[in-house]
Amino acid sequence: MSTSAVATLRWNEVALELIDQRVLPQRLDYVRCGSAAEVAAAIRDMVVRGAPAIGCAAAYGIALAALEAARRGEAVEGHLLPAFDLLAAARPTAVNLRWALERMHARWRALATAAAPSVAPELLAEAMRIQAEDLAANRELGRLGASLLPQSARVLTHCNAGALATTGHGTALGVIRSAVEQGKQIEVIADETRPFLQGARLTAWELQRDGIAVTLIADSAAGYLMSLGQIDAVIVGADRVAANGDVANKIGTYPLAVLAQRHAIPFYVACPVATIDATLADGAGIPIEERCAKEVLGFAQATWAPSGVAARNPAFDITPAELVCALITERGVARPPFGASIAALLSRSG
Amino acid sequence: MSTSAVATLRWNEVALELIDQRVLPQRLDYVRCGSAAEVAAAIRDMVVRGAPAIGCAAAYGIALAALEAARRGEAVEGHLLPAFDLLAAARPTAVNLRWALERMHARWRALATAAAPSVAPELLAEAMRIQAEDLAANRELGRLGASLLPQSARVLTHCNAGALATTGHGTALGVIRSAVEQGKQIEVIADETRPFLQGARLTAWELQRDGIAVTLIADSAAGYLMSLGQIDAVIVGADRVAANGDVANKIGTYPLAVLAQRHAIPFYVACPVATIDATLADGAGIPIEERCAKEVLGFAQATWAPSGVAARNPAFDITPAELVCALITERGVARPPFGASIAALLSRSG
Repeated sequence: MSTSAVATLRWNEVALELIDQRVLPQRLDYVRCGSAAEVAAAIRDMVVRGAPAIGCAAAYGIALAALEAARRGEAVEGHLLPAFDLLAAARPTAVNLRWALERMHARWRALATAAAPSVAPELLAEAMRIQAEDLAANRELGRLGASLLPQSARVLTHCNAGALATTGHGTALGVIRSAVEQGKQIEVIADETRPFLQGARLTAWELQRDGIAVTLIADSAAGYLMSLGQIDAVIVGADRVAANGDVANKIGTYPLAVLAQRHAIPFYVACPVATIDATLADGAGIPIEERCAKEVLGFAQATWAPSGVAARNPAFDITPAELVCALITERGVARPPFGASIAALLSRSG
Repeated sequence: MSTSAVATLRWNEVALELIDQRVLPQRLDYVRCGSAAEVAAAIRDMVVRGAPAIGCAAAYGIALAALEAARRGEAVEGHLLPAFDLLAAARPTAVNLRWALERMHARWRALATAAAPSVAPELLAEAMRIQAEDLAANRELGRLGASLLPQSARVLTHCNAGALATTGHGTALGVIRSAVEQGKQIEVIADETRPFLQGARLTAWELQRDGIAVTLIADSAAGYLMSLGQIDAVIVGADRVAANGDVANKIGTYPLAVLAQRHAIPFYVACPVATIDATLADGAGIPIEERCAKEVLGFAQATWAPSGVAARNPAFDITPAELVCALITERGVARPPFGASIAALLSRSG
């Protein structure tokens, strides 16, 4: 079993190449982004998605802006400042985007006294470090999370919190991969995850490639399988976690947490520490992106709803901390009460 | 506002014509069924769906078998007995199918002493009575249920329990139509209802035709809208109700009931008395149809999941009676405890 084959993001000398997640699994195409604007468009249009992956992509977007300034022999701030604004506005919910941009900004400030030509390669090196650290974080949180799963388990997951949502290995799927590497018998039940179908298209594809047993279900079938006693654990990723442990994640996560509690099934959230937004006391402050209604009316080129019908398309929901059994990060597994356990995680050195 | 334009089933001299619900809303086509076998296939393949509609279609299937016997001058039982078996096996969960067949069987037995040529027209007349009575039941339960809704309400519904699921007006949508007729301001939030997309295709189409405000959402978004306080009531139909009030309905109904309870939102089930199966003490005895996995891998001609991936496709789930606030029928509104209130309904003359 190898996850190295899935290179969600790859730097190719002068450009960032991203797997086009809109067309998987039918096609494995890469979209080439040669500028910050192209990276921002790729994030907005969901060529790349998943909180850690879009954070990392945005970091490369900043590096691309610096490289462009160097190529033209122009002042770097004239390229970087609009790039920061453009990338920060690409999608609102995943805090990893802001986190990565803040880290790139801090690195730029630290370089301010350096000779101008060195800024671009240094920012590129910082983006590469973000990528490498994310992969390492996934492997470590995967290892820690795997110990929470029994020797044999049917694990429900929602959306795609896998290699495609990160720089490799994955968060929720990282826990599952690590459990399989530890010799555990894991069978994954994957919600298809309307409207973008990340579960049906991306999670199923990733796991199938890795030879991990996966069974697809309609999002609305999870409750029934729980009522039959056929789900042993739920693991999802996160787009933002507030200081109190409230979790923003893909729309449909909250109903799973409510159902899991009713059926006394452990509900786990796996994410790197970069997904925690300590500036927010609770989930009420997390901005929830409402995407284009068209996504709900069909999929890709197909439209099946009647013409002109209204739709709402919130892309995320908030799962209150009371429904979360554990938050699995690379710095450790936080348990309730999360206010204290998350603060303790954040105070540890990364 | 008129619902007469939607003739889900219509008898056309020598055949039953059914709206092809697989291709709505793109096309409004009728499938012509000239035999019991063609009716059974139409039920199995979901040309017609919805518990009351498939019961009524099956009744016409029996009439078609009797007409075929008369046309050939053959013994009626040689045609009726296999027709009863074939139609009864078409789909397992909706009890209305069995109910309608039992009623047709009883009518046949009552005719046993009559001259053979009169059996076929009498059975056709019985099927027409079932159709007319279902429409009347829908209008009456709609009227009774409408009084449960406030003057202004945002009502969530799942799947299609509308004119297309019945002989007209609808059960859950019948309540909504009646409330609108009473001058109430009703806004419908319709779950798209994967995998067959009855909400996106059928409910949205019906309500749009009637000028009733409808907003489509992904199935997994209902919990988020409830958490925002944007849902005032949930109304669904039913495929079978046990004597204790447990409800089998379209997959995804149970999660809505759990979420509604958490948010103190009333959860109503609307169905004719024919949907109540007094032979079952509780929902555990209701057979849950598991349909072809292929339905989950895509829709219609489109497949988006990776080739060869496993899927599960339970078509219904069980909502325990404890989560149901009221059962709305044409004989009255039953409230908890349902064991007593349902028994009282059934003891009233129909």
